[in-house]
Amino acid sequence: MTATPAPTAAGSGANATAAFRAGTTRRGPADVDQQRVSTVAHALLDAVHGVIRDHEITYPEFQAAKQWLIDVGEGGEWPLFLDVFVEHEVEQVAERTQHGTKGTIEGPYYLPGQKTLPAVTALPQRADEKGDVLVFTGQVRALDGTPLGGAEVDIWHADADGYYSGFAPHIPDGNLRGVITTDDQGRFEITTVQPAPYQIPTDGPTGKLITAAGWHPWRPAHLHLMVRAPGYRQITTQLYFHGGEWLDSDVASATKDELVLTPETRPDGRRQATYDFDLEPA
Amino acid sequence: MTATPAPTAAGSGANATAAFRAGTTRRGPADVDQQRVSTVAHALLDAVHGVIRDHEITYPEFQAAKQWLIDVGEGGEWPLFLDVFVEHEVEQVAERTQHGTKGTIEGPYYLPGQKTLPAVTALPQRADEKGDVLVFTGQVRALDGTPLGGAEVDIWHADADGYYSGFAPHIPDGNLRGVITTDDQGRFEITTVQPAPYQIPTDGPTGKLITAAGWHPWRPAHLHLMVRAPGYRQITTQLYFHGGEWLDSDVASATKDELVLTPETRPDGRRQATYDFDLEPA
Repeated sequence: MTATPAPTAAGSGANATAAFRAGTTRRGPADVDQQRVSTVAHALLDAVHGVIRDHEITYPEFQAAKQWLIDVGEGGEWPLFLDVFVEHEVEQVAERTQHGTKGTIEGPYYLPGQKTLPAVTALPQRADEKGDVLVFTGQVRALDGTPLGGAEVDIWHADADGYYSGFAPHIPDGNLRGVITTDDQGRFEITTVQPAPYQIPTDGPTGKLITAAGWHPWRPAHLHLMVRAPGYRQITTQLYFHGGEWLDSDVASATKDELVLTPETRPDGRRQATYDFDLEPA
Repeated sequence: MTATPAPTAAGSGANATAAFRAGTTRRGPADVDQQRVSTVAHALLDAVHGVIRDHEITYPEFQAAKQWLIDVGEGGEWPLFLDVFVEHEVEQVAERTQHGTKGTIEGPYYLPGQKTLPAVTALPQRADEKGDVLVFTGQVRALDGTPLGGAEVDIWHADADGYYSGFAPHIPDGNLRGVITTDDQGRFEITTVQPAPYQIPTDGPTGKLITAAGWHPWRPAHLHLMVRAPGYRQITTQLYFHGGEWLDSDVASATKDELVLTPETRPDGRRQATYDFDLEPA
């Protein structure tokens, strides 16, 4: 670790005033807004200091927290931890200025560049893919109801055992993922399987915190979606299932009343759920 | 990344209630107090969520913060960052129930097991050690004034260029570090050199934050000390120098008015500073 001596030794006073209060702020290089960084970092540190004061955090607790933060990095779990416990609040802020279909968190399992598929399609799946067949239909529209033909419905979801392709080694790449292009009426019909609720990983530091705090690690079953069309704001969202377990206590706090599907059973025995997406101008 | 399916599919409701609010809390294994962990982790998350709401944190800012947290871990800077920006608040909480000489943060540069030295001694230093000679004298006492002979004064400080042995490869191990045993009157006289103010490391993610926020990375010149005697509470503290630069804007917010030395120049030209330590019962 390096350190550099002071060029001079002037100055006076003995008040414990933090440098970040005294530092001058100005527009920095590379379009970093120093005032914004200073204000937000300052607010976060003040918030943490407030919890330390209010809850009388001890040195052993501070040392335990330090080790846990180190462990989160070494376990590669910053995306997991932040997407589960923090992203929903960022999404709520974004929602304040948005119209049309509600968004929710993206989560850590999105993979770009999946197979492009026609408007009526089945998602890539194994020959013996487990689970109830689910037919997911709907329409992509502008806020005024204009159908958006050629829109993209980028969908990914867990399998009937709660695993995502690309993150579970036993599942082929691209399984239960795809980018569907809507027909000229903005419609799509996607045949897939009902996903299961799943636990976020419990073997790392995020799971260790959940266990230590006596929380639970479950997310309700859901479909992940990004819906996009040229000239419109992309929606990143999730759709849940009416009556699904953990719907009222999602570990990621990412459910919304407007995002719950109510599937019906068709004469052929398949479950069908419908959802229409309303996109606002970009 | 693994996930596990739900054992059943009961339940209902569609409210975005966080799992950590719904989770039951109970006394856990290995003497972890689940209620305490849940309360504090909950308070910290709520505090962070409040900043996100109040300052309308955007997705690009969230992603930048995520990358910075990853970088802090990869740079091995959690101890540095936390000791500089957080520890002072933990120390202030500890101080609430303490009597005797004030403590302050330990910082990241302490190394145990240094050379034991007699009451009148010079700290280990290079033959050509740079800097003004500093003679640091004092007495270790109980709160009622009883001298504590055989007490230990464990001291470590930066050199005249602002570097610590053990952390700067060009300095011999143990340089300007030592554990002095007081005489039967509790007294000590340590000959060393005047340390310089220094910058905390600016080449890693902690420095990157400081630069992005327009803060400064300086700590005022100081001696680090742990003072201990059997049956008494150990004091971990730092002593600063009257008129020293950065004394009123320490990046680590660790200065206190009671911890400032006022060295005098002796007839032999050496600087002498005196400080007495008052220890409370353990």
